[in-house]
Amino acid sequence: MRIETPSGELGEMSGPRLRERLEALAKISDEAGALTRLYLSPAHRRAADLVRQWMEEAGMTSFIDGAGTVVGRYDGETSQSPTLLLGSHIDTVRDAGCFDGTLGVAIAIAVVSRFAEAGLRLPFALEVLAFGDEEGVRFPTTLTGSRALAGTLGSDALGARDADGITVREALTAFGCDPEDIPPAARDPRRVLGYLELHIEQGTRLEAEDLPVGLVSGISGAMRLSIEVEGTSGHAGTLAMDRRSDALCGAAEMVLAIEARARALGDLLATVGCIRVRSGAVNVVPGAATFTLDVRAFDDELRRSTLEAMLADAGDIAFRRGLRLRHRIEYDQATTRCDTRLLGFFSTAMERRRLRPISLASGAGHDGLAVAALCPIAMLFVRCRGGISHHPAEEVANADMETAAVVLVDAIFEYASEHAANHKIQVNTSL
Amino acid sequence: MRIETPSGELGEMSGPRLRERLEALAKISDEAGALTRLYLSPAHRRAADLVRQWMEEAGMTSFIDGAGTVVGRYDGETSQSPTLLLGSHIDTVRDAGCFDGTLGVAIAIAVVSRFAEAGLRLPFALEVLAFGDEEGVRFPTTLTGSRALAGTLGSDALGARDADGITVREALTAFGCDPEDIPPAARDPRRVLGYLELHIEQGTRLEAEDLPVGLVSGISGAMRLSIEVEGTSGHAGTLAMDRRSDALCGAAEMVLAIEARARALGDLLATVGCIRVRSGAVNVVPGAATFTLDVRAFDDELRRSTLEAMLADAGDIAFRRGLRLRHRIEYDQATTRCDTRLLGFFSTAMERRRLRPISLASGAGHDGLAVAALCPIAMLFVRCRGGISHHPAEEVANADMETAAVVLVDAIFEYASEHAANHKIQVNTSL
Repeated sequence: MRIETPSGELGEMSGPRLRERLEALAKISDEAGALTRLYLSPAHRRAADLVRQWMEEAGMTSFIDGAGTVVGRYDGETSQSPTLLLGSHIDTVRDAGCFDGTLGVAIAIAVVSRFAEAGLRLPFALEVLAFGDEEGVRFPTTLTGSRALAGTLGSDALGARDADGITVREALTAFGCDPEDIPPAARDPRRVLGYLELHIEQGTRLEAEDLPVGLVSGISGAMRLSIEVEGTSGHAGTLAMDRRSDALCGAAEMVLAIEARARALGDLLATVGCIRVRSGAVNVVPGAATFTLDVRAFDDELRRSTLEAMLADAGDIAFRRGLRLRHRIEYDQATTRCDTRLLGFFSTAMERRRLRPISLASGAGHDGLAVAALCPIAMLFVRCRGGISHHPAEEVANADMETAAVVLVDAIFEYASEHAANHKIQVNTSL
Repeated sequence: MRIETPSGELGEMSGPRLRERLEALAKISDEAGALTRLYLSPAHRRAADLVRQWMEEAGMTSFIDGAGTVVGRYDGETSQSPTLLLGSHIDTVRDAGCFDGTLGVAIAIAVVSRFAEAGLRLPFALEVLAFGDEEGVRFPTTLTGSRALAGTLGSDALGARDADGITVREALTAFGCDPEDIPPAARDPRRVLGYLELHIEQGTRLEAEDLPVGLVSGISGAMRLSIEVEGTSGHAGTLAMDRRSDALCGAAEMVLAIEARARALGDLLATVGCIRVRSGAVNVVPGAATFTLDVRAFDDELRRSTLEAMLADAGDIAFRRGLRLRHRIEYDQATTRCDTRLLGFFSTAMERRRLRPISLASGAGHDGLAVAALCPIAMLFVRCRGGISHHPAEEVANADMETAAVVLVDAIFEYASEHAANHKIQVNTSL
């Protein structure tokens, strides 16, 4: 069976067109002069509306589900056709770049628009999902949208509060969603074939290998903790240095001990992203300090044992300095492996384009972590310049975006062909 | 000349009465469940009104000057009499104790009420000042009230902004003051004899020496800096440990280097009271971190040379980690020595009570720093339990408050006697 994708006329899949859309999305921010679009914020709402408009223009029907996920549906040959899910996320970190998440959404929409233009129906429906809570910046929880889709969102998740004390439930209502619509947002696993996501690599392996795209073997397990150090506050001008139990000095020593352990290992990342002194003032010896800790590794056992060692270090430091220490695990996610059959479709598509199909582990978490509870998942990484991500300097070449789009189209055709062969049906597999 | 103060009938100067007043003031807070009363806040306004009421009850006329300082005046023998200033401050740090500042105000009012009850006029007027900006917590500036009194408040001070972007000028107006009244609040140095302040020690020397009060030789010089560390932010799940320029790890190393230098010296205190990661998130490698630094020493040269060494350490750390470093000096105050003649009055008063007049350097800044530009100053420290201050556990014994009040009365009589002798006038010097 021959599969053809025109390389001359990419249309909506062309690099300049994709960039245009990504730049339009990047203008939608909660913060002047920087791209910050947190889950269920006003900017998230405006971005969701724009994505819906693109979906409708691409020939899809669209809606926003109970968890704020934008869903665009392109029907298959019959109303009985199962569904292949595509997508990524449209929320961002603070002061973000404009490719993380949105690239996968924009390419998926462009790919569907090519099918629609060609009037081509597949033996399965395609749905493009634009999730809203992948970064987990606003609330202590994360992946709310993809967990709702998988039917694994606990009811307690809606009670989580942001820094202003607003719950997810309240924010959903303000966003225009009805939290009652969350249970019906869960999909029937029997109707879903799989989930394919394109995402920037956020690392430098592809650049080093001189490849535009790469297969993702899986998503590294991750834990997030909040750690609280308590000492005794006092007057900065009177409390003698040798009588202090300075919570911040203790926390600083812990931050360095965490860094040292992670540096000593090759395959583990540890990050303290936030720190604050409670009731802090320039002239007060810190009485309490809290910080966050993020630990990731593809090897779950390594991750667990290293975290234990880091907490033991922190305990030693606290003991020596007369501080009290508490930690709470906010998030704990085991490593998720991508489905080899779905990866095979990407791999065949890459080989057809004479691209060596190398495999990468994803250090970053993705919605696939949650979607894996519903159906098989696979991801394709797209090269990004210098591996820079979560930063305004994030950049992807036009040609790489086009290659990623073409590989996705080919992989979908591969899937359609195999599906047709298995179900003994005829499929038109050229655009 | 004999001077008598009744020890049996302390009246308003009795420990239980003083404690009652301090507890009433401590209930006036901007924060539920904790004592936080920042300069020009609603709680500061309510506290100022209560202090005015006490002043009026004590036989003083009262007003609030253009910088928010509560002023109570008890006239001298004639309208030509010069003025002796007493007082302290009624603003607090966050989550404060209830003696810091307010003790000096409450005792000064009680002392004046004793003169008024006795119908006694001195050859000088007494003014009790309750300053509002001694802690310097809300705005990047400090001592606004005492600098206005001394006539040294620069006009730029009114433009300083708090964390919410509110200027001192706006806050003054909201407080009910007219910033136009600041220049007239400055006193004529020819009409002011001196400034006497009682304040808790906020240290443990008096406790160690088993003394209720001690003379203050002077107020240590102090500098406050803000230090900014800039690295490169990145994704916590993808940026390899050995490719990071983590601003927070760099800042943590600087905090420990500062602590180590201060610990190695005996006579210098250094405190990092606040730290934050700019655009920080649990899953983002910190791109920028800022922290404050407070350095104090009685020896100005030691303070300057040590700060230089600390900044050099920070520079080395930044260089090694590929970080950029900036610092700004927000506040720089040389050591201020108390006036030996005024200290002599306290000293004589203490000896009369069979109290060994030991001398202490104040590590904490006080309004006297600013008032010293107007007139001679002297301070008396009062023992506080465990040296604990800037903390809810701050505590002073009733007997120590009474001793402090009696020593202040005696010192004022000493001054009155000497003044009378110098001016060849007769003074009634017993209560």
